Parts: sequence; C-alpha cells; structure tokens
Amino acid sequence: MDIEKTLAALTLPEKAALVSGKDNWYTAKIDRLNIPALMMTDGPSGLRKQTSTTNDINNSVKAITYPAAALSASSWNTDLFHQLGEHLGVEARAEQVNILLGPGVNMKRSPLGGRNFEYLSEDPLVAGKLGTAYVQGVQSKGVGVSVKHFAANNRENQRFTSSSDMSQRTLRELYLKAFEIIVKNALPETLMVSYNRINGVLNSQNHYLLRDILRDEWGFHGAVMSDWGAVANHAAALSAGLDLEMPGKGQPSVDEIVKAIETGELDEGTLNKSVRHLLHLIQNCPTNPHPKAYDHEAHHAFARKMADDSIVLLKNHQNELPLTPKNQGKLVIVGELAKHPRFQGSGSSHVNPTKLVTPLDALADSGLSADYQQGYTLDDSETDDQLASDAIAAAKQADHVIVFAGYPEKEESEGFDKSAILLPENQTELIGQLTKVNTHITVVLQNGSVVEMPWVKNVAAIVETYLAGEAVGEATWDIITGKVNPSGHLAETFPLKLADTPMAPTFGQDPHHENYSEGIFMGYRYYDTHEMRVLFPFGHGLSYTTFEYGNLVTKSDAHGATITFDVTNTGDQAGKAVPQLYVANHASHAPMPTKELRGFTKLSIDPGETKSVTFHLNRRDFSWWRERVHRWQADTGDYEVMIGESSHDIRVQSKLTMDFENAPAPVTLETYLAKVVTEPRLRGLFQRTVVAPLLQPDVPQNLFSETDADHQPLLFQSRMYLNMPLRALVALGTPAKPLNDFIQAANQSR
Amino acid sequence: MDIEKTLAALTLPEKAALVSGKDNWYTAKIDRLNIPALMMTDGPSGLRKQTSTTNDINNSVKAITYPAAALSASSWNTDLFHQLGEHLGVEARAEQVNILLGPGVNMKRSPLGGRNFEYLSEDPLVAGKLGTAYVQGVQSKGVGVSVKHFAANNRENQRFTSSSDMSQRTLRELYLKAFEIIVKNALPETLMVSYNRINGVLNSQNHYLLRDILRDEWGFHGAVMSDWGAVANHAAALSAGLDLEMPGKGQPSVDEIVKAIETGELDEGTLNKSVRHLLHLIQNCPTNPHPKAYDHEAHHAFARKMADDSIVLLKNHQNELPLTPKNQGKLVIVGELAKHPRFQGSGSSHVNPTKLVTPLDALADSGLSADYQQGYTLDDSETDDQLASDAIAAAKQADHVIVFAGYPEKEESEGFDKSAILLPENQTELIGQLTKVNTHITVVLQNGSVVEMPWVKNVAAIVETYLAGEAVGEATWDIITGKVNPSGHLAETFPLKLADTPMAPTFGQDPHHENYSEGIFMGYRYYDTHEMRVLFPFGHGLSYTTFEYGNLVTKSDAHGATITFDVTNTGDQAGKAVPQLYVANHASHAPMPTKELRGFTKLSIDPGETKSVTFHLNRRDFSWWRERVHRWQADTGDYEVMIGESSHDIRVQSKLTMDFENAPAPVTLETYLAKVVTEPRLRGLFQRTVVAPLLQPDVPQNLFSETDADHQPLLFQSRMYLNMPLRALVALGTPAKPLNDFIQAANQSR
Repeated sequence: MDIEKTLAALTLPEKAALVSGKDNWYTAKIDRLNIPALMMTDGPSGLRKQTSTTNDINNSVKAITYPAAALSASSWNTDLFHQLGEHLGVEARAEQVNILLGPGVNMKRSPLGGRNFEYLSEDPLVAGKLGTAYVQGVQSKGVGVSVKHFAANNRENQRFTSSSDMSQRTLRELYLKAFEIIVKNALPETLMVSYNRINGVLNSQNHYLLRDILRDEWGFHGAVMSDWGAVANHAAALSAGLDLEMPGKGQPSVDEIVKAIETGELDEGTLNKSVRHLLHLIQNCPTNPHPKAYDHEAHHAFARKMADDSIVLLKNHQNELPLTPKNQGKLVIVGELAKHPRFQGSGSSHVNPTKLVTPLDALADSGLSADYQQGYTLDDSETDDQLASDAIAAAKQADHVIVFAGYPEKEESEGFDKSAILLPENQTELIGQLTKVNTHITVVLQNGSVVEMPWVKNVAAIVETYLAGEAVGEATWDIITGKVNPSGHLAETFPLKLADTPMAPTFGQDPHHENYSEGIFMGYRYYDTHEMRVLFPFGHGLSYTTFEYGNLVTKSDAHGATITFDVTNTGDQAGKAVPQLYVANHASHAPMPTKELRGFTKLSIDPGETKSVTFHLNRRDFSWWRERVHRWQADTGDYEVMIGESSHDIRVQSKLTMDFENAPAPVTLETYLAKVVTEPRLRGLFQRTVVAPLLQPDVPQNLFSETDADHQPLLFQSRMYLNMPLRALVALGTPAKPLNDFIQAANQSR
Repeated sequence: MDIEKTLAALTLPEKAALVSGKDNWYTAKIDRLNIPALMMTDGPSGLRKQTSTTNDINNSVKAITYPAAALSASSWNTDLFHQLGEHLGVEARAEQVNILLGPGVNMKRSPLGGRNFEYLSEDPLVAGKLGTAYVQGVQSKGVGVSVKHFAANNRENQRFTSSSDMSQRTLRELYLKAFEIIVKNALPETLMVSYNRINGVLNSQNHYLLRDILRDEWGFHGAVMSDWGAVANHAAALSAGLDLEMPGKGQPSVDEIVKAIETGELDEGTLNKSVRHLLHLIQNCPTNPHPKAYDHEAHHAFARKMADDSIVLLKNHQNELPLTPKNQGKLVIVGELAKHPRFQGSGSSHVNPTKLVTPLDALADSGLSADYQQGYTLDDSETDDQLASDAIAAAKQADHVIVFAGYPEKEESEGFDKSAILLPENQTELIGQLTKVNTHITVVLQNGSVVEMPWVKNVAAIVETYLAGEAVGEATWDIITGKVNPSGHLAETFPLKLADTPMAPTFGQDPHHENYSEGIFMGYRYYDTHEMRVLFPFGHGLSYTTFEYGNLVTKSDAHGATITFDVTNTGDQAGKAVPQLYVANHASHAPMPTKELRGFTKLSIDPGETKSVTFHLNRRDFSWWRERVHRWQADTGDYEVMIGESSHDIRVQSKLTMDFENAPAPVTLETYLAKVVTEPRLRGLFQRTVVAPLLQPDVPQNLFSETDADHQPLLFQSRMYLNMPLRALVALGTPAKPLNDFIQAANQSR
C-alpha cells in the first residue's frame, strides 16, 4: 500500500470511519481501496476472542491461559517473556487476530488497585524490561500489540473521570517510565490510552501526554487507540493525539468527525495524521486468510514452564519444602482451591482455558499421595464448622499439611478496587486453627495481588502462586516437590498491613482526584526509605539452593558505569539466581529513595559453578527528573551500588563516584551566603568586593564589622547568617552596589 | 489623631518612611505631625530588647525568661496563656516596648524544624486557642503583638527562598488555621510575614495570602509587617498587601517607594492603605513616656507557675515519682545540665534572664538531698570516661537516680534545621550504662523539640521539661517532689524514630521546594491514620492522680453539636485533667484522618470530685476545605466523638449523626451509573427514560438487552458497569438522546 496515495484517495467519511472502530473488535474496512479491517482481542495473558456480541465477557473461544502478569512478572525473566510473546503471537495468527491488547504495564501503586493482577510490578524497570520482551515476542510473529493503559491508571473506582494528580517528577520517574522503555526499545504498534485524567486533563485529550511526550520526546511511530469507552469528545481527542476511538459508536462516530472538520473544530491535517498512523498499522499487521493451527499441548506446556519459573517460595522454615514421595510422610491437602483453583483474573483479561489442570488433578503425576479435605467453602466467607473440624482432625494426624488459600474472584477484577487485602475469614481462621495442631503447614496462595498474613510466623512454608494460569496444578507440584527449583521473586512488596501503605488514608477516597502524594516514594522506595518492616520485601524469593556473591568491581566514566560481580551456586542442586542491582544517590540535592532498582537478570547456575554478571549503567540510569529545568539531570558525586537477592537482602555493595559535566548554577541575589563562603573562588571575590570596603574605618558599623582574629567577619561563622541569601543582606542594610558587583564578577569568571 | 487628616498632610517621602522601618527596632518618627516612633522587640517568651546595634543577638536588657512555647503549650491552659500575655504586656510597657514580636504559631511539621521550640503545636486548634489567649493578654495592657510567621514557614534551611508547596486544603486546614483563629478572635495589631514562598509565590508578595485570605476572608484590620529581611521587592510587597518593611534599609527604602509611585509601579492609593494601617497601629499602641517598673520576683514566680503547669510526666513506672524527703533514700543527680541547664532557645527569642535558678540551685529548697555527678560534658559529645564511671559507680550505690539530659543549644536554634533528633552520644551512652546498674532511673529532659529515646523501656520515669525558662530549677523539683501534681500534656507527637515521620525522606532535601506531600496527614493525623506505634502520642501526659470519664451525652442540630461528659478525680490528691475532644468524620467523600482534635480544656479537680465539661461544635468544626468549590463543606452523615487524655487514650466515645443542608450534586454525563441505580428517584426515571425504550423488541441488541427475572438489566448487577459514567455508556453504543433526556429530567425534578 502506498500510504500517501491511499490517504489522498480517501473521502472524508472514509477517513472518519478509519479513526473510529467499526464495532467492538474491528477497525473499519474500506473495500473500495482494499483496506482490510484489523481484528483486535483482549489479552494480555491469553486470547479473549469474544464469541458473543453481548457484554458477557466470559464467552470467548478456547485459548491457552498463561499465568496472570502478577505471577509471570515474578519470573524476572526477559527471555521467557519474549517466548510468551511468541506463543501469544502464534495463537493470535491462528485466530486471525491482528492486534493483541496487552501488555498491561501500569505500576502497582496500592494493593487495593483492582487491576493489579494484570499489571507487572511496582517498579518501572521490571515492568519496562519484561514488557519490552513481551512486545518484541508478539510482534516477531507479525501481530501488533497495544501497550496499556497509558498512563497513570492505577485505580479502578471512578476510573473514567478521576484525575491522577502528581508531580512531573513522579510521572516521569515512575508512571511513564515502563511505557518509555517499551516505546523506545520494542516499537509497539499501538498504545492504549486509559480512561483517567492526569492532573485534571483527560488522557484521551491530553496533548502533552500523547504528542509532546509520546511522539516528540520518545519518538513513538505507532497508533494511539482509546481504551473501550475512554473517548469523551472525539474531535478533541483526535486533536490531542488519539488516532483510533474504540469501540466505534457506528455512524454517529463518523458523523461527528465529518461535522468537526466542517465546523473547523478539527483540522483536516490533524485527521490525516491519525489516518496515516492507521494505514501504517494496517500495513504492519497483515491480515491472514489462511490461519495455521498451533500445538495446544506444546503451548500448555509453555504455560506450565512460565508458572514454574515464576512461582515464589516466600518462606521455607527448616526446609519444610520440597516434599517428595520419600519424605512426605502422611500428607493432607486442605482447601477447596485445590479443587477449584483461582488461576486467572476477572474482566477483559478473562480467558476460556484450553485445558485447566487443577492441583488435585495433577497430584497423581507429582508422585505425592495425600488425603484431601475441603476445609472451607468458596461460596461463603463464614466458617463451615464441619468442613473445618474435619480438616483439623486430619491435620492432627498428618506429618505435613498443604493448605490452598486465596482471594475470592468476585473481589478481584478489572472495573473496581478492593477495600481490604485480607483472605476470607473462614480461610484465615482455618489456617490459624491448623497451625495449632501441626507445625508443618505449607500455605499455597492463589491471589491476584498482595494479602495480609496474620499467620505468617506460625506456618512452615508459603508458596505464592498468584494466578498461575491453566497449568496451575502441574506448576504448583513442580515447585512443592522440587521437580523445579523455585526461582520466582516478588515484583512487588508485601506490606505487613494495608495501613502501612503510604496511600492507605487517601486511595479512592476522593471521587474526583487521586492524589499521588507519596510521589516517587512508592513501593519499596517508600518502605525502605522509611525503614519500615514489611511482610516480604520487593525482589524476595527463596530457592532450594544457595547463592554467594563476590568480586564486585565498578568502573565509571563521564557517560556511566560498568558493574561486574560473580554469583556462585553454593548449594547441591542447579538453580536460578535473580541478581538485582540497586543504586543509592547521595549526590543530588533532591529527595531520593534509599535505593532504586537499576538492573536485574536471571541466570541458571549449576552447583559449584560461578557466573560473572555485568551491568552497564548509562547517564540516564543516574538521572532524576528536575522539574525546574524540565529535563533529566545526572549529578556529580557519590553513589552506592548494591547487589542483592531482594531490596532487603543486599549481598555486596560498593561506593561509586560519578563525574558528570553540568554547568554551575549562576550566582544571583538568591544565592546563599553559605555557598559564597564555602567555595574558595567565590569567597575570595566576596572578601575583596564586598567585605573589604565595609571594613574601612570610615564606614559605619554594619553586619560585617565584627571580625575574628584572622580578620574574617564573624558572620561567616553564624549558621543563621550563612543561611541567608545575598538579597537578605541587602534588606538588612548591606549596600546593594558592591553585592551586585560581586554577582557580576562571579558569573563572568566561571 | 485624625487618621484621614494626618494621611492628607503627609508628604510622599513621609508616607514612604512610615511603611519602612526607621532601623532595626523602630518605625519612622515624623515630628512635624507628632507621629511617634513605635518600638518593637523580639519575643515571644520574654523581651529581647537589644542593647547593642550589632548583630549580636545575645546582648539585651535583663527580662523574665518564660518557658519556651514548646513547654508552655504543653499546659493546654488558655487561662495561663492569657496571664502570660498580661505579664509580658506589663514588662513591655515598663521597657517602653510598643509591639512584642510574638506569638509564634506555626505548625511543628517535622521534628527537624529548627524553630520548633518557639512554636506551639502540631495541631492548629491548640496553637490557635493558646495563641488567642496570649494575644488577648498582651494587648489588654496596651501593647501590640505580631503574630508570626505568616505562613507555612516550617523549615529554616533556605527559608528566604524555599517554597512551601501544598494543596489549598492542607494550607487551610492546617497551616493557616491557627492564624485564622487568632485573627478572628483576638484582633492582633500586627502579623509578621515569613520569609518563605507558598506554592512558588513569595509570602511578602502574596496577594492571595495577604489580601484575599487575610483581609477579605478573615477581616483582618491590623498592620502586616515583614520578618526581618523578608522583603525582596518593596513596591511589589506593598502592592500585594504588606504594610511595613522591617527593618528599614534607611534612605534607600524611602527612595525606592517614592520612585515606584513616580513610575507607576506602585499605586498611591495602595500606599495610602498601608499608611492608614500604620497610623491606626500607632494610635492603638500608645507610646508611654513614664514607664512603671514591674515586680521581678512576682513575674519570676509566674514563670515558675507556667512551667509547673506545663512540664510533662511522660513515664512513671511503678510510681517511681514523686520523690520526697521521705522516700528518696540515697539519691544521686547526674548530668551537667543540672548545673548548666538548657532553659531557652537560640536566635531572636533569646532572653537575658533576670534570675536563672538551676536545678542544682533549687535542690535545697525542694527538700531533697542528693549527691551530684557531672556524668558528661556539654562541650563535647564524646564520653568522658572518668565522669561516666564516677556517675555509674555512684548510681550503683543509689536508691534513685535522676539524670538530666538534653539537646545541645548549638544544634537547636532559629536559622537552621536539624539533621537528627538524637541526644548527644555521651548522654545516650551514659543513660544506657546507668540503666544497667540501677532500675530506679528518672530522666529529666531539656530540649526544644522531640528526641528519640532508645533507652525508654529501661528507665523508670521520664520528665519532659523542654526549655523551661529561668525558673527551670524550681519547676523541675516542683514536679519531681509532687509539690505540684504534673498536668502537662504533649502538644506534639514523639515518634519512635525520625524515619517514622512522613516527611523524613524529603524534609529540606530540595533547596527550592518543600513538598508538603503528607497533606493533611501531619502529626497525630498521620501516625493514627497509619496505625503506627509512636514513642508518646499527641496529648499524652501523666498525673499523680487518676481521672475517670463518663456520662457522655451528645446533641446535634443543623448548626452543630453539644457534647457533655463528666470527669472524676478517682485518686487521692488534687490534680488537673486535660480532656481532649476528637472527632472522626465518616460522612465525607474525601480523605480524612482517623480523628482530629476539635476541643480541649483544662480543669482542676479535687479527689473524689466530679466536674462536668461541655464542648460546642459548630458547622465549621465539622467542615473540610473542598477545593473544587473553594469553600468549607460540612457533610451530612456519621461522625464519631471521642474524649480522651491523649490521641491514643480515648476514654469515652459516641456516634453522632449530623444533618447539614447541602444542595445535591447535579446529574451530568459524568455521573456514575452506580449513583443512578442506588438512588430510587433516579433509578425510576432512568428505567422509564433510558432502559424501557432500549428493551423494545425492535431495538437491536445493546448493553441493556439482557435482564434478570425482574426485568432489570444485568448491567445493574455488574460492579464494572456500575463504575462507568453515563458518557461511557454512550461511548459503548447507548444512544445519546434518551440519556440526555434523563439528565435534564433528573435535574429538573430535584
């Protein structure tokens, strides 16, 4: 297709049709010019190709249900994310899907966020790097993606109207960063604009977001589409930088654009830009008249592999796990979730699985044998006395107990937020009772986001499986039996309790505004900086083997730094380590978290083997967004490099001094005396220009009259006066002229 | 003086001179028109009438040194604050001082704030009510005050330029409120504008602050003066609402105003407004050619009384205190601060005391007898091994030990902030050592602001004397011996550690901006809402007797509520209770602290006696500042009334339902379906106007097509759809016309 020729051939109504979805899932088709319709379907952890035209989101074609992002992100494995993308791409081709709506890369700001389960992390580097691999994987198969939800959509309640209010620094450093990484590195075909506002401006009409930042700064060349129903004013949205309204409202969508052009409300040049983006998109995502079926078994096996690599062993007291046929003794499995597992979230990401394998289904293949006790019902949060007492009685007789516990599906969905993060009462109570009769309790968790664990100290082991996808049963036993050595690490912090989260008192409280008042201090950046205890820190995950770190070497120049270190598997079995690189900034005159993740990798290491890891940090990795000058700034000074297995478990660390070129700030009347006195060049100049004339015998007594034995003004020793700007000296009676002379000379001589 | 006639007679240079201080301490004198100079001196806890013309703030005439505000505020005693004001007024008249620069009523936002010691509280009601009594007391003697520092001056570092950035709600509810209470209730003669900016605008040039809020909203009729050196642009400041630049720069100050009028930069009508304010001030603060001496002994006695009523007994394990000649046994006093006490802060509030009585001086009169061990040196923070081991040896043999500990003066002053809140290392170490050899340790603290207490669990008693003024020695023993039953309560929270404060990572970190990101969640509003443990909660203070609370009765109407309860002294000696009224707001759709102080009083109760207390709450007491409509809003709904002896020690509580008239919000396209479905009137209208037509057989399938057995759309049961605004329904294909008809009808029928 010659895009410019096609554009020239399109009528105004045809252009209007192209920038409006034809219906829920297709773009407009223009047969006259051989422009095909693109089909899109929900993702991101499996295809939700809807079979019903109603609003019933649970009717879709069968598709592989991969782990939800909350779990898969815990893999910290970019290679695996690339493969996940490839698998999804193959499936999309097979289903004639042109654009897969995913990945979801918003930050998990509060544990109450209703959609946390389909987002990756509380850290933008984790979300950005994993999202990049996913997009590259999908798009390598000729299928486009829609990276969502752009941006700062971290709350579901009133998501259509509420404004995410935050500083530019917070926006840049946290809430835009994952998108920026993906846009720059993976060139996604589309981005999906979220419902909310940022600082009062609706995202779908946010010129600063959609043009200034996304296109002009980041160089995005794809198409920008709306989340479903996010467009409030179609013409205003196109003007601001939206390209495609989804879904289309039918003819009214076309009419309003034609009318907007006619009245001048919308510029046709602007419309043409969007049409060009759509034509490029259609060119880049070829429709496929002859789909090729995929190997469902192989893809199911990959869903299992993804879960295997992601499930997090949170606690393992006295090597309670692995449990094998040899050491299991008398084993009891408790909990309806073993039979009816939660394995995915609700809402647009809901998939109709090809083959759901529950934990009970998979038990036989695991080699373990166990009695099963339902323990509680999922339908009700009240304790069923009979079920509970049966389970307790069985646990009393058991050598080991595995309790499946989880968060109810009806409370964890797209579309609304939570109000608490507690497991249902009957489950919490049951676990409490079980710990009283047996000390060998393993809790297997199925949940979309963090939960409080009042029983944490009384259980022997905790396995966090989140929402593990259709291979939930197989993967759970892979980890518990040690068939797979666990290597998942949390991509979010588990706080001790909801009230510990910085936004606990404010999240969702104001129907119109969500105040991101914690700023850049979100997730581990908050807990670590406030020296708070947490339930499990960001990055935490245990293994059945052990790793040692050493030989940390850092090198730096004016462009960045190289950090090299060794990881040795000191245990007796192969395992995967997730070395995490954190950097502390002691150089900048700005609030800074105690540390920030600046690199990570995942590597398989055999017992006794040592692998070397190298991280490269560039200038941007040392930068913060300085609002006063509206740009990234890297400061000269001291940094600390820390390598750890979680944000709390730092194994090796080293000081690092960076030397970045930055122009010195000019001296003005607002410059503080402290700066003048401590910089030798300025002090000498000040002494000659300002002080000496004021010390002449004929000058009346003034602020500088009293001096010490070295003829230095006593003022220079007073913290109160050092903490005054030059203009305050004028206000307190110092003549303005010599001060102005000093300022001029100081700026000339730099 | 006929003010308008005088104004008409003044020349432009004379007017310019009047709005510029003549020098450091006087306003301009215009003999030609019999306009006298007003003299002002620093306060607020004693007169600092400077005797030297240099910048040495420690040379001033002898004056009574009352407790610093940090201590006196702990009295929670408005009557005593009125008396304090009267005493200061009498002294000011005696010294021919016309304006006393105080009180300081800024909020103690961070424990690092360098000037916390001369501010009253972290709560605006405490600061506002005590400040009101102080101002009324001073002004009852014909002396004016200057309420300072207006406003949001909560940081000393870079105070001349840094901007206090916060929401309007935070500004109104916390940082302006004490000023508002005082302006409206005590009619202070002047206010002092602080150095800093608010949201980027320099306070001395802040029209919104100085005219819109202060004069137009609050009705302030006094004069607005600058803090010393706070004026950056004299003409701009006068235009914005400043009346008097202090100090004057001499002739340059006059010249710049004359020039500004001539060039039109400053309007002469505006200048005349300020001159009028100055002439009124001069009229209201009569100069006094025949000063009358005051009774120094009686005023010293009042300084002691003020401290007696304010010292806070923080801890008293197993009635360690009081110590009397009868029960003291072998008593050892440790600590150089017993001999060289800290009793006042540094900077402009520094007073040259008439009669300093140290704890060692006052020991004999207390009836106690004790050995004294220096223990440590104040000059150095390193342990002096000899001093320490002597003290430990003495403590080993003692029945009781009293350790005087405190924060060094050089670290606690106006003009700069702290970087930590730890006692000097040698003191902390010594206390730790002493607790190992003796369990009967009482720590007496001398400090301007909160400190961390790593030894808190190992000492028997803690007496917080803050900076107790020149009667420090007498008052300390009054409390320790039980001659006075302690009744001081903390006007600030003692956190466990600095990192627990919400602004720990940000305070003072940015040289240009101080981000009040914790918003209204400051002090106990933060700790209580986040369910955090603290060292000692806001409002805490022990007594040698006990009080019981009961008979809580609440009444309410559309204007407010009346809360009545009884307090009974259930111990065996007279004492003073400080009942505190907290209110929790469960009615408003906005972030709210767990509770907020809405009333307090102090009452003396004899053993066995019961007193009844009544608090009246008006509409404003239930209001929050709603930014969207720029006004105070009181919401109908549920509140909780709590009466306690601290913010943690709630004794009685009761639900309270308030019914305030508020116009209902209009229905718009932004109205959420949840609201439509839950309000019966709207639901019926929606059913008729929107749903019924869409359920007609000839209408194509749409969002409302699927219904339950009661013919209600399934949509009404979906939390995801209920959480959509009406406009999203349009975007998802619902025809716009019936929706618009519904909106019109809904708003007409209200």
